[in-house]
Amino acid sequence: MVEGTTRLETFSDGVFAIAATLLVLEFSVHEVSGPRLAHELLHLWPSYLAYATSFLTIGIIWINHHYCVATFARADRVLMFLNLILLLIVGFLPFPTKLVAQYLQKPGEQDAVLAYCATFVVMSIVYNAWWRYASYDRRLIRDDVPDSTVLAISRAFNPGVPMYAVVFLIAFASPLASVILTFAIAAFYLPSAALFTER
Amino acid sequence: MVEGTTRLETFSDGVFAIAATLLVLEFSVHEVSGPRLAHELLHLWPSYLAYATSFLTIGIIWINHHYCVATFARADRVLMFLNLILLLIVGFLPFPTKLVAQYLQKPGEQDAVLAYCATFVVMSIVYNAWWRYASYDRRLIRDDVPDSTVLAISRAFNPGVPMYAVVFLIAFASPLASVILTFAIAAFYLPSAALFTER
Amino acid sequence: MVEGTTRLETFSDGVFAIAATLLVLEFSVHEVSGPRLAHELLHLWPSYLAYATSFLTIGIIWINHHYCVATFARADRVLMFLNLILLLIVGFLPFPTKLVAQYLQKPGEQDAVLAYCATFVVMSIVYNAWWRYASYDRRLIRDDVPDSTVLAISRAFNPGVPMYAVVFLIAFASPLASVILTFAIAAFYLPSAALFTER
Amino acid sequence: MVEGTTRLETFSDGVFAIAATLLVLEFSVHEVSGPRLAHELLHLWPSYLAYATSFLTIGIIWINHHYCVATFARADRVLMFLNLILLLIVGFLPFPTKLVAQYLQKPGEQDAVLAYCATFVVMSIVYNAWWRYASYDRRLIRDDVPDSTVLAISRAFNPGVPMYAVVFLIAFASPLASVILTFAIAAFYLPSAALFTER
Repeated sequence: MVEGTTRLETFSDGVFAIAATLLVLEFSVHEVSGPRLAHELLHLWPSYLAYATSFLTIGIIWINHHYCVATFARADRVLMFLNLILLLIVGFLPFPTKLVAQYLQKPGEQDAVLAYCATFVVMSIVYNAWWRYASYDRRLIRDDVPDSTVLAISRAFNPGVPMYAVVFLIAFASPLASVILTFAIAAFYLPSAALFTER
Repeated sequence: MVEGTTRLETFSDGVFAIAATLLVLEFSVHEVSGPRLAHELLHLWPSYLAYATSFLTIGIIWINHHYCVATFARADRVLMFLNLILLLIVGFLPFPTKLVAQYLQKPGEQDAVLAYCATFVVMSIVYNAWWRYASYDRRLIRDDVPDSTVLAISRAFNPGVPMYAVVFLIAFASPLASVILTFAIAAFYLPSAALFTER
Repeated sequence: MVEGTTRLETFSDGVFAIAATLLVLEFSVHEVSGPRLAHELLHLWPSYLAYATSFLTIGIIWINHHYCVATFARADRVLMFLNLILLLIVGFLPFPTKLVAQYLQKPGEQDAVLAYCATFVVMSIVYNAWWRYASYDRRLIRDDVPDSTVLAISRAFNPGVPMYAVVFLIAFASPLASVILTFAIAAFYLPSAALFTER
Repeated sequence: MVEGTTRLETFSDGVFAIAATLLVLEFSVHEVSGPRLAHELLHLWPSYLAYATSFLTIGIIWINHHYCVATFARADRVLMFLNLILLLIVGFLPFPTKLVAQYLQKPGEQDAVLAYCATFVVMSIVYNAWWRYASYDRRLIRDDVPDSTVLAISRAFNPGVPMYAVVFLIAFASPLASVILTFAIAAFYLPSAALFTER
């Protein structure tokens, strides 16, 4: 029999890697831009920002996901389904990323960024639910994993939802600030807080 | 020598994960929709429905596929070929999914949904044939797998073809109802009936 | 140290699975075809034929590739490079497949099919070189693999290049016949001749 | 617990394979080109050159990456983050590759090639930093890896940045020469110098 958590990880690994790499398809320049190509490439900065933000976030969720799964003794049907919902949202991320790349600093940017940030809010809610379900009362946790490790992971998950909720609200005032904050979370907060808290 | 079922699974895992993640490419908004972006994003609901339906179905087929393969002692050439046909259909799914996303609630929706549902019918026929071939007379089943497990999996496969056939027929009356039913099968029926019936 | 042939297989598996699944992106219908959608979907048959042909071929090359690699004791730098060239061509296949889908039965079909068949010719030459290099004088073959197995694989490789060369030439007379023959090779010849010849 | 370097490799393998295979999406011909298809296919040579260059480079970075990771005893958070940055750039490569395919030998070619070469410069800087961080004072190197192996890998990394920097500068004089040199590095230099220097 295939062991439960391996089954969980293979498909997740695939979706994480593919969703991150598909992000590059958002980039495009107009066919006619030949002589002004340098100029247009510089003006694509919202695309670069959106690409880096989404790529780093997926990458860190992926590393984090592995770390969590490594504490599981087994996977049950609820966890498998929550995991599938999480992947469904990660797999969806290239679309709002493309919206930000297309609309930031243009008419419609607020709607685009709200859709982007809402995706992050939902993603962090589902990711939290996924971990809470597995760790509640050590439901799926291996016996040899100390309580302190479980607690450290839970503490690292805590700020996720409120943080992305605040970033969502900020988009009503400044869409650009919201995207930059989402990038900052991926580049500075997540690596230090969520990634290696077990030590 | 590479063991037969590992050989079977690696390529399958890849195709399942990639087909699911490519589904996101169906989403698109018109370049000119800037000021009315929120409105257009809300009107994309057929895309969201089609995306969630296809993603969940692929995800559950994938989990189920692993569970079946785990009961196999080996793979023979017929099984490999049936598996390749199954993957060919799963890999095709993003196209009818895109048709539903583009045409639902618009002229042509019935043709689009019939193509979508027909893909599910063919997929469930091939998937059934794949399992029937492997399990008939325990042809490829490991000795240490109890008959009750084989029987439970077979029972879980039974309703697949008739269920998708009915959903196909319903599309003649109401395309939207067909898509919602396909979603409901993926969200409610498959996880409970097919996924963990061995217990 | 990572063992040489594992290193060889992971990247190959990825490219095979992704190239096969990307084939679905060739399908498209015109935005305006709503009311005549069923009609247009039926007239996409060159796309279905091209999709099935390329998908099956990649799938069988993949299975075959695993079977060959399982006879290798190690991989050296020449083999790694030949393997990379093989993957470069497999990764390219979605483009000529798209050409056939777009142009079959339309002006330009001969050029499209010649490009398609030429890709298969080059692919079979490189694949042959890959196996010949590894098997010549049992250069990279494991000691416990009997000569009869090596010989059986070599015999299965023999008809590849001439067969695809003939199919290429037939495209000058009938492009459609060439594509159908390429499909027939993938559906009937390859599974029986190349796949399990060791028995 | 999942072992650190396995965690590092799975996601990297995925991104390398997907980025290489997505390169094929750069190819396109105009819908109206039917009767002149052969002519247009020949004039796509910048696309073929750009495709082969990027595919080979990613393939060799991937092989090289595995070889380096095989010398690691573990991965720490800094390495994980540097690795994510490296993947972010590899995942980005299909975009400048597409620029070269679209603009080489047309107005805007210098900007396109500068963007392409700049990506290679940044990629080689990050890749160097990744290895220097891991190997400095044998920080993450396994005890059983001899100094001579570490030194050989470091020597192979040395010419990367200056070489791509020179190719970048050459693009100001001749964009085409720059692309050909980038191809030559991937086809001739990298396999011989970087790949198997440990022997």
